[in-house]
Amino acid sequence: MLPGKVPPDVLERIVFAHLGKEDKDLLLGPAIGEDASLIRIGDSIIVAATDPITGSVEDIGWLAVHINANDIAAFGIRPRWFLASIILPLGFGESDLERIMTQIHEAAISLDITVAGGHTEITEGIDRPIIAGFMMGVATENQYVTSSGAKPGDTIIMSKTAAIEGTAILAAEGAPSLTERLSPEIVDEALSLRSQISVVEDGIIAFRTGQITAMHDPTEGGILGGLHEICDASQVGFEINLDSIAIHEATSAICDVLSVNVLELISSGCLLMTCAPEGAESVVEALEARGIQATILGKISSEASVRKGTRKGESIQMHRPKKDAIWDALKKLNQK
Amino acid sequence: MLPGKVPPDVLERIVFAHLGKEDKDLLLGPAIGEDASLIRIGDSIIVAATDPITGSVEDIGWLAVHINANDIAAFGIRPRWFLASIILPLGFGESDLERIMTQIHEAAISLDITVAGGHTEITEGIDRPIIAGFMMGVATENQYVTSSGAKPGDTIIMSKTAAIEGTAILAAEGAPSLTERLSPEIVDEALSLRSQISVVEDGIIAFRTGQITAMHDPTEGGILGGLHEICDASQVGFEINLDSIAIHEATSAICDVLSVNVLELISSGCLLMTCAPEGAESVVEALEARGIQATILGKISSEASVRKGTRKGESIQMHRPKKDAIWDALKKLNQK
Repeated sequence: MLPGKVPPDVLERIVFAHLGKEDKDLLLGPAIGEDASLIRIGDSIIVAATDPITGSVEDIGWLAVHINANDIAAFGIRPRWFLASIILPLGFGESDLERIMTQIHEAAISLDITVAGGHTEITEGIDRPIIAGFMMGVATENQYVTSSGAKPGDTIIMSKTAAIEGTAILAAEGAPSLTERLSPEIVDEALSLRSQISVVEDGIIAFRTGQITAMHDPTEGGILGGLHEICDASQVGFEINLDSIAIHEATSAICDVLSVNVLELISSGCLLMTCAPEGAESVVEALEARGIQATILGKISSEASVRKGTRKGESIQMHRPKKDAIWDALKKLNQK
Repeated sequence: MLPGKVPPDVLERIVFAHLGKEDKDLLLGPAIGEDASLIRIGDSIIVAATDPITGSVEDIGWLAVHINANDIAAFGIRPRWFLASIILPLGFGESDLERIMTQIHEAAISLDITVAGGHTEITEGIDRPIIAGFMMGVATENQYVTSSGAKPGDTIIMSKTAAIEGTAILAAEGAPSLTERLSPEIVDEALSLRSQISVVEDGIIAFRTGQITAMHDPTEGGILGGLHEICDASQVGFEINLDSIAIHEATSAICDVLSVNVLELISSGCLLMTCAPEGAESVVEALEARGIQATILGKISSEASVRKGTRKGESIQMHRPKKDAIWDALKKLNQK
């Protein structure tokens, strides 16, 4: 299997076939395109998610909080409690742990999250730290959205811009070689996109409009992967205007230099939303009123096989990305 | 820092100082000697724990469920929902993932647990799989115990035998060299202790007697480490009879051959419990009625500095283990 998330067909065939006891209180369990699980406890519904950070050393504590928080916010729910299994390589000392914990603390404070528990150990056989994060929030009956509620005719909206996470990663990894071909200002702007990686406010604000039918936090496979996931979960299709996708100038510049498909580049920081067409304006206005860019991309199709984009009037079939564009982009960076 | 769990003073100084927002609904957060966290949600209390499995390849899926389930059961609460971040090294294929998922499924079925969610990925930079598990159960107000409720004069009880986990690990790792010095029957018995690693029934049965004041699942640092942790959490001391500690003959044999201190060898499979002296008999009877061996070890002292054992009438100061005995034992196995 290739590096990255295990592909959907393997999940369905192997993972989803081995889930222990059936439980009527598990309202939403493991499913393609869903960011978290829903568990009924009394009158409350727990929204719970887990994501590991395996590829980052510098930002690992900060990312572990934000990436897991995004999964809860994609349900329109505020993330509240974070637990972490922190696994450090041999040679890591107290100052390394303190740096990680400071990042976790600061990210948690910025989102009103409490670190509720965890486990910290040193282990052999890893060449960098790994943090598996676990986030919980609380919803009540019918007061949340999933990825599966998109309806034919719904308007598709994105927050912020495409490939925020991928842009920041490529800028951080490739700053020296990128500055040979791009202005230092553009590379700095790309680096600063890192600060936009949270979609917690995006999710809470959009959900509060009462208009949202589905939300999804596109990560691996970028905006295009995220659109496929929301449509798989909702058993619908999409028709989008490729010219309308919001792309930051620093993202465009880096993707051009590395010949990367921006639509398939890891995209934490953007939230995909659907709503009935008559509600779209109020969603966009609510986000923009809080300083969050929001862009209408197109609409949901009733045919699940319709996965189309239009560029300069020409219609293109949009295939599901086989893997995230970040891997080839990093290879190109290292070759330069 | 040494391999294994980060030491208590580092946790207190670095980790516990960086826990994000304070939250009145977090009834029990990160604390030395506590196996899980308690979070109030409406009229319910969530018991949540995370533990990674980093040192096992063959049994990793099975261990991930049991080790996390034990953390919840140590509160007297049944574990119900499991989430896992499964991180596989390059070169792992579908059959490897299927083996892990089959283990998770079978362990979950055996304990009535539901796999509620997770994340599965392939990543570079690790030489074996890692699973970070998260387990949740539900308690109600005052209907649980922690590690911190032990009272002076309480009787200390252990279930099953010491170093069950360590014995099974050493037998699995060292079977060829151990059979040169021990009978194949003893090595087989040691291997079969693996099946006793769960303390879920121990914890539920003991708690139902209504007598338990504190429980703790001793893992790293063995029975001795566990006794220190329960006393640290309860701000008390212990006085135990070292001759009374229940040790399986296969455990004794392997510890003798490798000159390992059985009291400091990793001990999942045993549960430490305290109760008022007048309740001790009913706890022991309840466990034995369900076929679970139970042994009275001694009593809780009001002086937190008293950490004593008696062997053949002689009193010995029992120091906290600096690290688990498994590491030196594995080195000795590899030298043979």
